[in-house]
Amino acid sequence: MSSTVSATGVWRNLRLVPELAVPDVAPAAAECAAVVVEGGMLRWVGPERAVPAAYAALAQFDGGGALATPGLVDCHTHLVYGGQRANEFAMRLAGASYEEVAKAGGGIVSSVNATRAASEDELFELATPRLQALLDEGVCAIEIKSGYGLALAHERKQLRVARRLGEALGVTVRPTFLGAHALPPEYAGRSQAYIDVVCNEMLPALAAEGLVDAVDVFCERIAFTLAETEQVFRAAQQLGIPVKLHAEQLSDMGGSALAARYGALSCDHIEHLSQAGIAAMRAAGTVAVLLPGAYYTLRDTQVPPIAALRAAGVPMAVSTDHNPGTSPALSLLLMANMACTLFRLTVPEALAGITTNAARALGLQDTHGLLAAGRPAHFVLWPFAEPAELAYWLGQKPACTIVRQGRLVQGGAQMSAPGASHGV
Amino acid sequence: MSSTVSATGVWRNLRLVPELAVPDVAPAAAECAAVVVEGGMLRWVGPERAVPAAYAALAQFDGGGALATPGLVDCHTHLVYGGQRANEFAMRLAGASYEEVAKAGGGIVSSVNATRAASEDELFELATPRLQALLDEGVCAIEIKSGYGLALAHERKQLRVARRLGEALGVTVRPTFLGAHALPPEYAGRSQAYIDVVCNEMLPALAAEGLVDAVDVFCERIAFTLAETEQVFRAAQQLGIPVKLHAEQLSDMGGSALAARYGALSCDHIEHLSQAGIAAMRAAGTVAVLLPGAYYTLRDTQVPPIAALRAAGVPMAVSTDHNPGTSPALSLLLMANMACTLFRLTVPEALAGITTNAARALGLQDTHGLLAAGRPAHFVLWPFAEPAELAYWLGQKPACTIVRQGRLVQGGAQMSAPGASHGV
Ligand SMILES: [Zn+2]
Ligand SMILES: [Zn+2]
Repeated sequence: MSSTVSATGVWRNLRLVPELAVPDVAPAAAECAAVVVEGGMLRWVGPERAVPAAYAALAQFDGGGALATPGLVDCHTHLVYGGQRANEFAMRLAGASYEEVAKAGGGIVSSVNATRAASEDELFELATPRLQALLDEGVCAIEIKSGYGLALAHERKQLRVARRLGEALGVTVRPTFLGAHALPPEYAGRSQAYIDVVCNEMLPALAAEGLVDAVDVFCERIAFTLAETEQVFRAAQQLGIPVKLHAEQLSDMGGSALAARYGALSCDHIEHLSQAGIAAMRAAGTVAVLLPGAYYTLRDTQVPPIAALRAAGVPMAVSTDHNPGTSPALSLLLMANMACTLFRLTVPEALAGITTNAARALGLQDTHGLLAAGRPAHFVLWPFAEPAELAYWLGQKPACTIVRQGRLVQGGAQMSAPGASHGV
Repeated sequence: MSSTVSATGVWRNLRLVPELAVPDVAPAAAECAAVVVEGGMLRWVGPERAVPAAYAALAQFDGGGALATPGLVDCHTHLVYGGQRANEFAMRLAGASYEEVAKAGGGIVSSVNATRAASEDELFELATPRLQALLDEGVCAIEIKSGYGLALAHERKQLRVARRLGEALGVTVRPTFLGAHALPPEYAGRSQAYIDVVCNEMLPALAAEGLVDAVDVFCERIAFTLAETEQVFRAAQQLGIPVKLHAEQLSDMGGSALAARYGALSCDHIEHLSQAGIAAMRAAGTVAVLLPGAYYTLRDTQVPPIAALRAAGVPMAVSTDHNPGTSPALSLLLMANMACTLFRLTVPEALAGITTNAARALGLQDTHGLLAAGRPAHFVLWPFAEPAELAYWLGQKPACTIVRQGRLVQGGAQMSAPGASHGV
């Protein structure tokens, strides 16, 4: 991609979002802020006037009064797949029935076939511009699920591509094994046999190869049962791998409460989540991941129980759910807008949803999603007067400056000699 | 902005969208296409094998198999204004009532105040990145309305900025006078007096200055009556200026039929359009402009009568309606997706909606919105396998190559020596 330079230095003339920063020195209201980067880490965050003298010899960057947030986190994606399904999108709009779409090779099976047919290099090439689109908008950590391979060799291929993308593009990638995404055609009518393979062959092999940061299941009438889900969770638990769940998207299966019993990182979709599920998630510290892109694309009318989640204090995250069938979304800021507009999240909730809480949904709460000293340097400078603009504009790709993994990877800032004074 | 180079040459190795091109030689199915640019004009469009020998001496560009469409047209925007209303967006989500928002200075009055307070240069600076965001996505012609000044000097300022933007950024801008957008506070309770000023003072003065390509009115219970609308239309008619209308957005006022009687270029919004309105538009050749961004942002549930418009053969356009209150949209491709997803336009309808029919809604049907010889060279090369991808991806900013006004303004294409052979 583009060339990058070290971001080591003092970044001055910034404005922080109070909810997304833990300053080392408390700032006065509307006070000009600074962050210090050294050795790829955030060393200090606070008011510009209080930058420790020890950092005076570092390079000095003028942020131009930009709004500074932590790097964004996209905590639920199916980014690696063969093909795309634009034709299916067009067919449905032209009035084709599900049967006609299926006969024309559409539906998830088409993504499974295209993913199986693609080589690892081809999948890498296809996913790269999609990932880059998200990175251009400030994403610094992302989850990528398998689940279009549905056989060991092909699931491995997807997860290896996920890892490679992280290394090649310099971004934190969390690969999630979603072998239990759908029943592959060759197992039609033999769901239990497939789940046995998932648990006894695929998961142990992929985990041994270091390709599995979490295990996910699609628990739904059209996918896997509660009992099958629990079997996968037990297999993950034996390997010490955290779990998460596609839960209560189309109906209340009770999957969220089950997932909570297994200490799930997150329950995702949850349009039909019950009060009992909310209570279980609350007790387990499970994050509620909201996926408004799928809700929008499917023209769903059942909004997740936002008020009840809010009242219970369950942390809410917001993600693209990028996938070729139900959410071909390539903008996390658009998802923040949709979470506000369609789900009525407040702006602070939406912003926590694409930073702090999304990091927590990936087990990255100690390294991502918050501007604080002692963490890897991931942050974004936005040309905005106020934080609400992150969710307000519709379909904008802001001209932002991005520091990821301690490197300046997009945009820039005026640099001046070390120790130069920067009044504001 | 970025530096540009002449696009004069033969652009080979392209794929056309049949509905959006008028080739000089009929191509076989899936045949590789070419367009010839010379002197800022499209000189020839057709299959690559049939490029006339006369053009062999021109520069040769390899389009790399890209999908070629005419430049996009955004036919309804309020792009020039002071301030923005992100804070109002946040307040509403936090539960503030309309009254509380109004007390905090929100609503259209806040945009009027901020626009009046801004200088022409300030308005130009504020609008430039917004316009650039649309141009980056392939927009080659755009309408920009006044309507936040609501007094001669301030309406003039908005329209002058619209003209300046077109010259500075090298894009076709159609300024529309929308003095009858809202009743300015100083005329509270004196609607007729304000309309008299619009018709007798503002419109004649601005038209004399060459700032008015069309005249628009917001005809609605919360805005201006049918009689007031007609008074403005008559004033426009006397000056020979075409009209258009914000019609039937919140209720069926009969504005569309009135507009059709005045030969309106377009009726816009039209969620509550009646069958009689459709028939009148059909007879007058008036374009139906669909604004899904406002529908989405306002969480409207009344979908425009798409099936009836389709059945009647009324041309449908799709636009951003960019404005700071009800549609802060900065992506015309996202609007195409929303037109499909929310309004169930087919993909070909959505693509005609942001090209051919949008051009017609601006009276630009002879110069924009179609790839055909004899027109100014405005076209976009997309990295897509099929046209449906233009509407399918959600929130993507594709890496497209843009030729606007005969200049290569974004992206690029491999250039080879004149006369070199380009097999595909
Ligand atoms: Zn998913
Ligand atoms: Zn409008």
